[in-house]
Amino acid sequence: MTDKFEELCAIARSDQYLQSSLALLEWDQQTKLPSAGGAYRADQITFLAGEIHKRQTSNQRGDLISQLAASEAAADQHSDTGATIAHLKRDYEKKTKKPQALVEALARACSVGQQVWIEARAENDFQKFAPNLQEIFKLKREEADAVGYQSNPYDALLDDYEPGAKTSEVEMVLSNLKDELVPLIAAIADSSVEVDDSLLRREFSVADQEAFCLEASAKIGFDFDRGRLDVTHHPFCTEMGPDDVRITTRFDPRFFSSAFFGTLHEAGHGIYEQGLRSEFYGLAPGQYCSLGIHESQSRLWENLVGRSREFWQHFYPAAQSRFSSLKDVPQEDFYAAINRVAPSLIRVEADEATYNLHIIIRFELEQELLKGDLAVADLPSAWNSRYQQYLGIQPDSDANGVMQDIHWSAGLVGYFPTYSLGNLYASQFFEKAEQDLGDLHTMFASGEFEPLKKWLNENVHRSGRRFRSEELGQHVTGQPISHDPLIRHLRGKLEPIYSL
Amino acid sequence: MTDKFEELCAIARSDQYLQSSLALLEWDQQTKLPSAGGAYRADQITFLAGEIHKRQTSNQRGDLISQLAASEAAADQHSDTGATIAHLKRDYEKKTKKPQALVEALARACSVGQQVWIEARAENDFQKFAPNLQEIFKLKREEADAVGYQSNPYDALLDDYEPGAKTSEVEMVLSNLKDELVPLIAAIADSSVEVDDSLLRREFSVADQEAFCLEASAKIGFDFDRGRLDVTHHPFCTEMGPDDVRITTRFDPRFFSSAFFGTLHEAGHGIYEQGLRSEFYGLAPGQYCSLGIHESQSRLWENLVGRSREFWQHFYPAAQSRFSSLKDVPQEDFYAAINRVAPSLIRVEADEATYNLHIIIRFELEQELLKGDLAVADLPSAWNSRYQQYLGIQPDSDANGVMQDIHWSAGLVGYFPTYSLGNLYASQFFEKAEQDLGDLHTMFASGEFEPLKKWLNENVHRSGRRFRSEELGQHVTGQPISHDPLIRHLRGKLEPIYSL
Repeated sequence: MTDKFEELCAIARSDQYLQSSLALLEWDQQTKLPSAGGAYRADQITFLAGEIHKRQTSNQRGDLISQLAASEAAADQHSDTGATIAHLKRDYEKKTKKPQALVEALARACSVGQQVWIEARAENDFQKFAPNLQEIFKLKREEADAVGYQSNPYDALLDDYEPGAKTSEVEMVLSNLKDELVPLIAAIADSSVEVDDSLLRREFSVADQEAFCLEASAKIGFDFDRGRLDVTHHPFCTEMGPDDVRITTRFDPRFFSSAFFGTLHEAGHGIYEQGLRSEFYGLAPGQYCSLGIHESQSRLWENLVGRSREFWQHFYPAAQSRFSSLKDVPQEDFYAAINRVAPSLIRVEADEATYNLHIIIRFELEQELLKGDLAVADLPSAWNSRYQQYLGIQPDSDANGVMQDIHWSAGLVGYFPTYSLGNLYASQFFEKAEQDLGDLHTMFASGEFEPLKKWLNENVHRSGRRFRSEELGQHVTGQPISHDPLIRHLRGKLEPIYSL
Repeated sequence: MTDKFEELCAIARSDQYLQSSLALLEWDQQTKLPSAGGAYRADQITFLAGEIHKRQTSNQRGDLISQLAASEAAADQHSDTGATIAHLKRDYEKKTKKPQALVEALARACSVGQQVWIEARAENDFQKFAPNLQEIFKLKREEADAVGYQSNPYDALLDDYEPGAKTSEVEMVLSNLKDELVPLIAAIADSSVEVDDSLLRREFSVADQEAFCLEASAKIGFDFDRGRLDVTHHPFCTEMGPDDVRITTRFDPRFFSSAFFGTLHEAGHGIYEQGLRSEFYGLAPGQYCSLGIHESQSRLWENLVGRSREFWQHFYPAAQSRFSSLKDVPQEDFYAAINRVAPSLIRVEADEATYNLHIIIRFELEQELLKGDLAVADLPSAWNSRYQQYLGIQPDSDANGVMQDIHWSAGLVGYFPTYSLGNLYASQFFEKAEQDLGDLHTMFASGEFEPLKKWLNENVHRSGRRFRSEELGQHVTGQPISHDPLIRHLRGKLEPIYSL
């Protein structure tokens, strides 16, 4: 069986050469592509994606996989070999269940959908986008039906981003989280303390912001010999080789937080990618576990590290000497400002506490749309009333409401909850790391980030995809996923700031 | 046959999606790739090149081509359809003649060869590089034998860069050129006029150089909506889509000419690529004719336009207001400096007159190596004595002598003469354009470059690969290739400067 296993690995590694080419084509499209180059690039990406799909659903591969899956080597699904076979089998079965016509119809609907979404959002015209959105949800439902599920079609889609996760379990933990968040946010709103964050909205030169972002992300452990930072409209992290992880950010010359915390966030994703086992690049032991675990790494560095008092004990003198806008700002005022909590309309600009309510709203609505319990025509009013109910505010427009995110237009249904799962895992991992390593905040105050990074490398990154996310969480922390550590973290930070 | 023709075109266009991906992987490697990312990128490029080769030599393609080649549609090889079939047939036959083992051995030898060349050049140690060079020339000879030729193995290699050209014809025209150049250069050396070019070696801020390069290349017609300019160690032009042509340059803060004329040169290549018929992207009617014709376009804009007095009548005021180093420099002194002729060791830094002697030396030596008339061990001394003979100088080291160019280490044997062919075609095209359009220099003086660009678009670019280079030259100018126009141009410019 060893020969056959090597043969299968070689095939998967070859796929990865094409996947990594696709990643470069997409990165380049976001960062460097000349304005007129988009049409050809779209065709080229479609072609490559099609070639990869052909390879991944070939009969030859199917035969090889079924022989190997029946072999002894596949028995331990958490071993390198077993996990490799299991994930290739899983992917093969899932992909071959989708009819070619559906795959193509979805690709087309999402490509057109994104273009219409861009226009409709710019024109604040939901009606223009509604037919596309309806078509996309119809096709996503067909996809769920084709792939199959036990009781909830949403399970089939969630599984793309959080392999093996069940909607009911995610629902439970997010519901518990909501029950704690809503009163906490209300108490903050009622507090007599007013946190002023206007000090973050002064002049911050782009060149200095860039230098500071590079310095901080390198300091926490992003390796610039194996990666780079570029500018895009929508920040992201991508990889196109075991030693080539690229993060992006955007600079606002009159707002400090956007680029800085965005860069820490993407650097967190990048540190995860750089911490994967490169000898298994393209195979399950060298792949990220799930989007929830990925997001836990970005949120951990952005929020639990980057918004901590001690992080700024270390970095604030450098920030003050670099930015004259901060010269007169006491460190405690800066610390409070970057942690200010206030309900807002836009998810990507939300604070650490209200952020999860944005997610829960989307998670609820996309399930209702998928099941047919909510019609697309009624979506804007459902969105607005849910914002009123959970956050106490209402969008001023659909552009700033239901049309703010790209996800649904791109067919990414089932993706949103992974953001909140990431927040939960981040706090759980952080608590466990602190149990193992001692007081992390003291380390941050003296600029020591390496112990935490190494702990994450060993405990989280090097597991790759050999465990499902909930197994990994249990394995690392000894606990099932829970809202408690995140709530403890938020209370621990926010109660003193708001004198609760 | 129409269906089969469409099928063949679809196959070729699909190849092109992969070729364009390869072009992006290579561009990125030169401009953006993180330092540690090289190893994986090399494997990835090898894989993609292999996949393309497999596609290009498939039996299915062979069958389709032979059916189409026998059809009526193929009869006129200068028609869009006929040229498409003819070139796909030509490429297929050439590629299938090369044994797979030889293709792989050459790929490996050149990959290793380039790495060893970099080290050996840095250490000025030709002996270190000699075994690799010997292996490469041995394999290139095997390649020539496999592909086949009438009397001269060099023909088989030259054909890769200058389709259909014969060594004997190139030899004749370059020999005529040499006979005129040697006395002209000698007369300049004997002239009492001393041209001072130290004024080009002052402070020129990189930011200002970049802005000026962008301005000038856009002005002559490079379209930045369909292209971009980046920084690399070795300047080049590449394309990765019908609307995505990328040029690069390098900036020396103490030398004006390197970036500026380098950018005009690459912009000339880019204007050619942007002038091809994009509806035939990936097919012969939409491909460049030959490397000689490609080089004619870069040399034309760099030298015939960019080093003309009238070009600087238009641009010099802007240059003076941008660069304080030029404030005290009269325009005529600047004009003489950028046209200074002096024998030098490095090809890429050579002036317009001596440049072709550098090429002739390489053209002679690589033929001798290929035929076995010269042993690799004797190459450095042959190189040095040829420099003494043609240019009156001797390299101070092999690093600045025989090891200065990457070409042989990369297996590019038969490539060098296309540079000189480019110089010859440039002058021929320029003379004809002037016959058709009137005094071009008067137009340059008032910043009008569009008429020349359009003339080149219509007469040269839009022919694509439907004609061989010598056919195209004849077709456009009514004359066979000749050294006369280039010599007329050089005499016309240099005799007044040097009071000959």
